[in-house]
Amino acid sequence: EYGIPVNAIKGEDEKTYYKHINTALDNKPQLTVDDGADLVTTLHTQRKDLISDVIGGTEETTTGVIRLRSLEKAGGLRYPIIAVNDAQTKYLFDNRYGTGQSTIDGITRATNILWAGKKVVVCGYGWCGHGVALRAKGLGSQVIVTEVEPVRALEAVMDGYQVMPLIEAARLGDIFITIAGDKNVIDEAHLKVMKNGAILANSGHFNVEINIPALESLARSKRRIRPFVDEYTLKDGRHLYLLGEGRLVNLAAAEGHPASVMDMSFALQALCLEYMVKNRGSLETKVHPVPDEIDKQVARLKLNSMGINIDSLTPEQKQYLTSWQEGT
Amino acid sequence: EYGIPVNAIKGEDEKTYYKHINTALDNKPQLTVDDGADLVTTLHTQRKDLISDVIGGTEETTTGVIRLRSLEKAGGLRYPIIAVNDAQTKYLFDNRYGTGQSTIDGITRATNILWAGKKVVVCGYGWCGHGVALRAKGLGSQVIVTEVEPVRALEAVMDGYQVMPLIEAARLGDIFITIAGDKNVIDEAHLKVMKNGAILANSGHFNVEINIPALESLARSKRRIRPFVDEYTLKDGRHLYLLGEGRLVNLAAAEGHPASVMDMSFALQALCLEYMVKNRGSLETKVHPVPDEIDKQVARLKLNSMGINIDSLTPEQKQYLTSWQEGT
Amino acid sequence: EYGIPVNAIKGEDEKTYYKHINTALDNKPQLTVDDGADLVTTLHTQRKDLISDVIGGTEETTTGVIRLRSLEKAGGLRYPIIAVNDAQTKYLFDNRYGTGQSTIDGITRATNILWAGKKVVVCGYGWCGHGVALRAKGLGSQVIVTEVEPVRALEAVMDGYQVMPLIEAARLGDIFITIAGDKNVIDEAHLKVMKNGAILANSGHFNVEINIPALESLARSKRRIRPFVDEYTLKDGRHLYLLGEGRLVNLAAAEGHPASVMDMSFALQALCLEYMVKNRGSLETKVHPVPDEIDKQVARLKLNSMGINIDSLTPEQKQYLTSWQEGT
Amino acid sequence: EYGIPVNAIKGEDEKTYYKHINTALDNKPQLTVDDGADLVTTLHTQRKDLISDVIGGTEETTTGVIRLRSLEKAGGLRYPIIAVNDAQTKYLFDNRYGTGQSTIDGITRATNILWAGKKVVVCGYGWCGHGVALRAKGLGSQVIVTEVEPVRALEAVMDGYQVMPLIEAARLGDIFITIAGDKNVIDEAHLKVMKNGAILANSGHFNVEINIPALESLARSKRRIRPFVDEYTLKDGRHLYLLGEGRLVNLAAAEGHPASVMDMSFALQALCLEYMVKNRGSLETKVHPVPDEIDKQVARLKLNSMGINIDSLTPEQKQYLTSWQEGT
Repeated sequence: EYGIPVNAIKGEDEKTYYKHINTALDNKPQLTVDDGADLVTTLHTQRKDLISDVIGGTEETTTGVIRLRSLEKAGGLRYPIIAVNDAQTKYLFDNRYGTGQSTIDGITRATNILWAGKKVVVCGYGWCGHGVALRAKGLGSQVIVTEVEPVRALEAVMDGYQVMPLIEAARLGDIFITIAGDKNVIDEAHLKVMKNGAILANSGHFNVEINIPALESLARSKRRIRPFVDEYTLKDGRHLYLLGEGRLVNLAAAEGHPASVMDMSFALQALCLEYMVKNRGSLETKVHPVPDEIDKQVARLKLNSMGINIDSLTPEQKQYLTSWQEGT
Repeated sequence: EYGIPVNAIKGEDEKTYYKHINTALDNKPQLTVDDGADLVTTLHTQRKDLISDVIGGTEETTTGVIRLRSLEKAGGLRYPIIAVNDAQTKYLFDNRYGTGQSTIDGITRATNILWAGKKVVVCGYGWCGHGVALRAKGLGSQVIVTEVEPVRALEAVMDGYQVMPLIEAARLGDIFITIAGDKNVIDEAHLKVMKNGAILANSGHFNVEINIPALESLARSKRRIRPFVDEYTLKDGRHLYLLGEGRLVNLAAAEGHPASVMDMSFALQALCLEYMVKNRGSLETKVHPVPDEIDKQVARLKLNSMGINIDSLTPEQKQYLTSWQEGT
Repeated sequence: EYGIPVNAIKGEDEKTYYKHINTALDNKPQLTVDDGADLVTTLHTQRKDLISDVIGGTEETTTGVIRLRSLEKAGGLRYPIIAVNDAQTKYLFDNRYGTGQSTIDGITRATNILWAGKKVVVCGYGWCGHGVALRAKGLGSQVIVTEVEPVRALEAVMDGYQVMPLIEAARLGDIFITIAGDKNVIDEAHLKVMKNGAILANSGHFNVEINIPALESLARSKRRIRPFVDEYTLKDGRHLYLLGEGRLVNLAAAEGHPASVMDMSFALQALCLEYMVKNRGSLETKVHPVPDEIDKQVARLKLNSMGINIDSLTPEQKQYLTSWQEGT
Repeated sequence: EYGIPVNAIKGEDEKTYYKHINTALDNKPQLTVDDGADLVTTLHTQRKDLISDVIGGTEETTTGVIRLRSLEKAGGLRYPIIAVNDAQTKYLFDNRYGTGQSTIDGITRATNILWAGKKVVVCGYGWCGHGVALRAKGLGSQVIVTEVEPVRALEAVMDGYQVMPLIEAARLGDIFITIAGDKNVIDEAHLKVMKNGAILANSGHFNVEINIPALESLARSKRRIRPFVDEYTLKDGRHLYLLGEGRLVNLAAAEGHPASVMDMSFALQALCLEYMVKNRGSLETKVHPVPDEIDKQVARLKLNSMGINIDSLTPEQKQYLTSWQEGT
């Protein structure tokens, strides 16, 4: 409707995906808006000729930011990027409430299970994991969290969840949700001890968090019993159910994030791109945080759109916050 | 029992408090462990002669860190300080679960109210405010949050709380809890419109968050009806109940934080002091964050003490996290 | 697969619905299993000739039980009915967890809204209303309950919800869910004051709980913007969104209750029918409760199917419960 | 202040307790208001001469009602009793929100533990158990429920709690709370496998729910480490902590129920006594339920006192509810 060419289909394969990335790059972008860093990676490897024109870019996801920081550390980053993912108005909302709700929604649509009373194993307690655990609990599930980072693990304990190594949780869970940002989080050893009927879903990183090749090799047959639900019959007779082929279940089986959380991420993208153009030439070639004022501005816009007013500091209160002499 | 002299009484007045601070300083400390920055402030103003011996210090509270950052910014800080308060194993746990529970506990002990069905107004949605709101909700209260920072305000909305300016909440609340870290958060205008019977408690900053002089001047009489509960009879006939004279209600009316959250803060203090001694001379004179490794170590120790094991990354997973080439 | 003829289509109109009822009755049933009492009503009005063969029946829903009790009171009931709806293993589970989850699910599928931060008005706080309110809260919504029965209203207050008359809630809500078991719960007066963009869904009684004729007459146009979502543009310019034409949103836009809650209701049906046949002739012609032993048996079977064991009373404990002499 | 003689002391022994009961009976009551049925039992055994003057009585507790029903069943009940405990405005509120909060409060005051992250075993999932479990969860605990009644056990599962036999839970729990209404709920076998440091509290039935004689015989020493906390050192070296000598922990270590839940129970008592006097001579000699109209009246009075208005049915809606002809 606005004269912008769109290259998108549902259910595209990897080859088509990279063809689309290259088609997009053929437009010789001055700004890049990426989600997972595949476009930026392509630009830094196969399409290096285009880089000199690029003023800057933004990255939407945890995964992409991790990859870009690795690229920066390796000395390979060629233009400044703002890590939109690390903005408070992104990760506190999109990752937690957006991914939380939509992951649960995807699994519900795929399976029509009742969440009340189910043992749900959430692998990873980052912001997305927080959201998924909170929503599963809110629907009456018993939540077990697995985590490798001790501070997050402790937080999960204090939030009222059971925390244990995945090899123990694997024997207990009715539903497993990976959201750890790493590969083979659910690995062969775990698959071997799961209960008959266990459901496997990923809402984290591409389709690598569940070791699907291992699942394939343990299985003697596989059939699709509902859209997005593949029943694996293992050689020992157990059935395991893989949702959405192990790809992000909220995108595969539901509609992704609700509009009312994506609006904040898009506002961040737009304001950050504007900021990069305005500050062209003066930004270091590295991964930058979102400027705090943009973060606050997006929150203020969102509150306004919801009809919510808040207080502001009085001059006396501002003064108090900046002083160090006033004591007890 | 260990030969350490202690200067402490319950119910000390300000003069005695500062006498104790000075008595402590008379020992010519090489390390300072402070809670609110009063000792450090005294050292930087009246006891400057002692500063040259000090290797470094730690600060426990949000308030203290704010004051020390102001001092640093004003160019006045004279030795390095580690902001223990800003460690994840501090603010995620002590501020949230510790202050959350103990604030509610203090109010319960002072008043024996039933929380279910009460409208509780939480002024401030920092980590402490998160905890207080969560615990009030967990006891069946309707929680209203007031906040000046838009990102936090939005987070409160998404966490399911009502958010509004305090002047509106003032008309609705049964119980008001200030935990904003600023002065006159509840001011004369708010006191004027509160319902008869409203309860006022502070769990934030010294005794300045509720404007007590304003309350005194609106009142025609005042009497203590239970320990820690002062009934103010206003000139218009309404009764307002101020708990613990507006000082931290968890310390005044309950027993402060439970041991099982203070242990983490104390472990941080001890490990940070050790770190400062080990790195004597090489630390910049500024407010430092807690080294990440100390933070993780404290979390690991705490999990061990609770008998909880967690996973660790496989070499393959570590490798994956540091690479930027692997994509979709 | 079992040689049982089924008369069912999705999206049937009223005429077809009653044709199906009559086709079912043509089989001259000895037992009736009803959901809403339409079949039993037809039997007691147009098909009286068939009644003498009927041993008994079961009724699944709150609505149906209310109608059958009216029929009994009016002296018209002609054979015994067991009110399956009133079994604990029905209303505590199906009504609360089943309707709770599936109502939210239907609205999510129809609209893809984010529940976090939304003001959700639940009209009616029976067991179904309990479930809907609990699930909306569990997804981060602010829940407002309206109710006409004072004990339930008070329970909603103590459960932490806002309670007020609907005419006040109508101005505040983003989403309205009727689940009261009565007609015109949302009436013209409420529609007139709702916010632009409000969403209306029914999960209660047929399609009468929202006054749709009133909505039609307030509107100047109407269009379907997504499946199950009709946008009404009112004469004053506001838009209201009616889901699933005001019919049960969990059936219209989702898949109804999950299997793992329906299994209990069906077990109750089967065991109650068996009970009626076994006790043929000795049961009074009235609406009976489900025998307590059947209720417990269904719970026991369900726990077994989930792999959960529980304790049983020791002889000493049984003895203690039946004695009245043992005191303090 | 009203000329009513009171016979009460804190910490009374059994002999004094029964002396007080007899002193009260010496006043030749026409109405009895009992809590646990000890007074009524005394009247039916040692003071039979006084019974002929008694018009009726009320009973406040689950325990008392169980004993009175046993008495009725045994043919021994001599005057009508209204089971106030079974009123909705009693058990839905006092038992759940009152006992729930005050039990947790009693344990907090006795021990100052942090609830977040603790494994809390609730023995019994009646209304009181619902309340205790809900409040422990609301404070961040992991709750395990044990129950002998399958419907309640299943409800606990669906409410998101772990459910298992107590002998398994005994190995896991940090805190055990009995609220089952029976004796030796925690028995020798359970005590033998508990973790070092486990805390035992009773909020159920007199002091019989925890088998204290068994605990005494397993212990090699015992000392009071805080008010209401007895540390038992077992022969195998483990420490177990018994609160309030196994008596109701909310009465022993806290202040019992908050006034704002007791007011409803007392209103029920008063209105039921009035009802008995008005209906003198026409009430059967049995245990009666609270008349529904009194129940609703108490709820209405309570809502009014909280400033909450609710809707009432329109004539059209009342009509709809009583009809059975209107269908789909």
